[in-house]
Amino acid sequence: MALLLHLSDVNEHAWAEGLQSALGGYPVLRRDESFDPGNIHYIFAWKPAQDAFDGLDNLKAIFSLGAGVDALLAHPRLPDVPIVRFVDDELTQCMSDYVVANVTMHQRLFTRYKAHQRAKVWSQLYPPAAFEINVGIMGLGVLGLDAAQKLSLLGFNVKGWSRSPKSVENVETFAGPDGLDPFLASTDILVNLLPLTPETEGILNYETFRKLRRRLIGGPVIINAARGKHQREADIVRALGDGTLSAASLDVFEVEPLPKDSPLWTIETCFITPHIAAISNERSGVKYFAQMLLDHEAGKPLRNVVDRDRGY
Amino acid sequence: MALLLHLSDVNEHAWAEGLQSALGGYPVLRRDESFDPGNIHYIFAWKPAQDAFDGLDNLKAIFSLGAGVDALLAHPRLPDVPIVRFVDDELTQCMSDYVVANVTMHQRLFTRYKAHQRAKVWSQLYPPAAFEINVGIMGLGVLGLDAAQKLSLLGFNVKGWSRSPKSVENVETFAGPDGLDPFLASTDILVNLLPLTPETEGILNYETFRKLRRRLIGGPVIINAARGKHQREADIVRALGDGTLSAASLDVFEVEPLPKDSPLWTIETCFITPHIAAISNERSGVKYFAQMLLDHEAGKPLRNVVDRDRGY
Ligand SMILES: NC(=O)c1ccc[n+]([C@@H]2O[C@H](COP(=O)([O-])OP(=O)(O)OC[C@H]3O[C@@H](n4cnc5c(N)ncnc54)[C@H](OP(=O)(O)O)[C@@H]3O)[C@@H](O)[C@H]2O)c1
Ligand SMILES: NC(=O)c1ccc[n+]([C@@H]2O[C@H](COP(=O)([O-])OP(=O)(O)OC[C@H]3O[C@@H](n4cnc5c(N)ncnc54)[C@H](OP(=O)(O)O)[C@@H]3O)[C@@H](O)[C@H]2O)c1
Repeated sequence: MALLLHLSDVNEHAWAEGLQSALGGYPVLRRDESFDPGNIHYIFAWKPAQDAFDGLDNLKAIFSLGAGVDALLAHPRLPDVPIVRFVDDELTQCMSDYVVANVTMHQRLFTRYKAHQRAKVWSQLYPPAAFEINVGIMGLGVLGLDAAQKLSLLGFNVKGWSRSPKSVENVETFAGPDGLDPFLASTDILVNLLPLTPETEGILNYETFRKLRRRLIGGPVIINAARGKHQREADIVRALGDGTLSAASLDVFEVEPLPKDSPLWTIETCFITPHIAAISNERSGVKYFAQMLLDHEAGKPLRNVVDRDRGY
Repeated sequence: MALLLHLSDVNEHAWAEGLQSALGGYPVLRRDESFDPGNIHYIFAWKPAQDAFDGLDNLKAIFSLGAGVDALLAHPRLPDVPIVRFVDDELTQCMSDYVVANVTMHQRLFTRYKAHQRAKVWSQLYPPAAFEINVGIMGLGVLGLDAAQKLSLLGFNVKGWSRSPKSVENVETFAGPDGLDPFLASTDILVNLLPLTPETEGILNYETFRKLRRRLIGGPVIINAARGKHQREADIVRALGDGTLSAASLDVFEVEPLPKDSPLWTIETCFITPHIAAISNERSGVKYFAQMLLDHEAGKPLRNVVDRDRGY
């Protein structure tokens, strides 16, 4: 029995040390060590290679470092065992930090004031109060719900959209494909916190933008902190150019890092961050997955297991 | 008996109409109408002229359109009657909107990401979580308390400083001159919501900035939404230049409108808004002052009366 780490692009060594000490005697292996694949009961994965799962015939579960599992589910040789995704208070806090910062920046007409400042213009345009603005959140999962609650405490009118109908305090909810248009029609600032699935891919497109409410000074705003493939970047460029959108905050992109020749870089009303809205923190990740493994070994059920049929 | 309006720089006509209809039969007069000064029982003032109060010998109270009364108190011929200042939920909401937007913008290292975007640099610098940041609020009055509470709900560590000792849930409080240094030493982002008095004038100076905690990436930040005379603009320019401060959000200025030759306009890390953090809204102002007058006429005590000895 052993836990195998297969973490690309992150400090695998640090995670190995952390997990080793959190797991007590339970063996932790790294890819470059020699081991018997039949001994591996758990694998902790991030951007797994093609052969990552080969020979792991006694696997009990896959631990995903990412909160989103779209890339993992697309793996061509994914074993049929439960996938546990990372759910963490600190990650949720950081995502809400990102959402609140970007919603309030656009509410307070930041782009406009920055342009006035550059032109040394003193012009008292009053931003709307939070209660005059509808923020629509796509995805009412772990992240969407926390952001919704915080925005509502700040005084915004919060709308939410999910796959299954939901009842959430202080949030007007909409569900399923039929709920999308009325949801968009009552949204000034659109926040995307959906998982990437065949149903949600490309959902941030020109038609969607055209359906948003146009009550905010300058026009509606989109904020995407979920996945780059949710957005059609050519449509965003067009919509920012023709006024269909007044601004966009994008943390994720169709191709990452965002290519140097993307027109998004130079659009004044587009706010680019390099996929840092919320990261999986090592300290809390070690604690979470070590506990998950030990609990499971002690006979408790796994939590935060991905539903493969839904795709998230 | 009558209410006299003396409102400079605002739409006095609209206020007159609003108050007229809210007050029923109680007479409302404008400056350009003819009237007997001895008949004026209340005056509703904003930037009153030198002779604004002359001959008003039967005045019962002065209503101040502004939440801050520093300018009014400096009037050389101010009658010795109670001054009622404007306190309003909507104004408070707007001020907290401003504070939250600016605190979170700096927390999320906005200046740095914007510079990276301009240079088309993809660099995953992770912003701190709210709970890693101390926001220090100077002034725990109507506005300071609301901002403190909202920032605390968002997860920030909130510190507060006031004249008299205070106990506020989820806020570590400091009081008086002796409390200032320890307050500053535990503050990463300093928010000024003090009234302007002889004690608080010029409090945002280089010495103050040097005493702030330096735990935030880049250095501490100041946000001034109270009065321009709280700040020494030459010191802000110096501190932003030498790294004592990493950024500043200023809604108010020593001279307003901010003169074209001010160096603040062109500092990339300085965020200028034209005194629009929170304005006195006509609809709620009419309701507030009409009710205040009618209640007082019915024998009830005035509320939100300025203490002239304290100066606020
Ligand atoms: N940028 C970053 O740094 C970063 C960091 C972490 C996560 N993320 C992204 O954020 C996403 C959301 O995370 P989470 O933990 O909140 O996920 P979650 O708990 O699984 O919640 C997903 C939400 O989306 C809804 N949804 C799914 N498919 C839908 C559809 N076709 N139509 C309408 N609603 C649909 C779900 O509806 P039901 O409630 O009906 O199931 C649920 O409310 C992740 O998948 C990941 O891609 C990004
Ligand atoms: N930029 C804008 O758009 C805008 C809009 C509205 C208001 N304002 C400004 O905001 C200011 C605050 O408004 P408010 O309604 O919150 O005032 P407030 O209710 O009177 O509260 C003032 C606070 O400051 C504290 N304070 C006063 N002098 C002090 C000193 N010497 N040392 C330490 N603390 C001191 C007071 O302490 P105690 O609690 O011990 O009395 C109180 O907590 C106004 O005066 C106005 O200038 C700006």
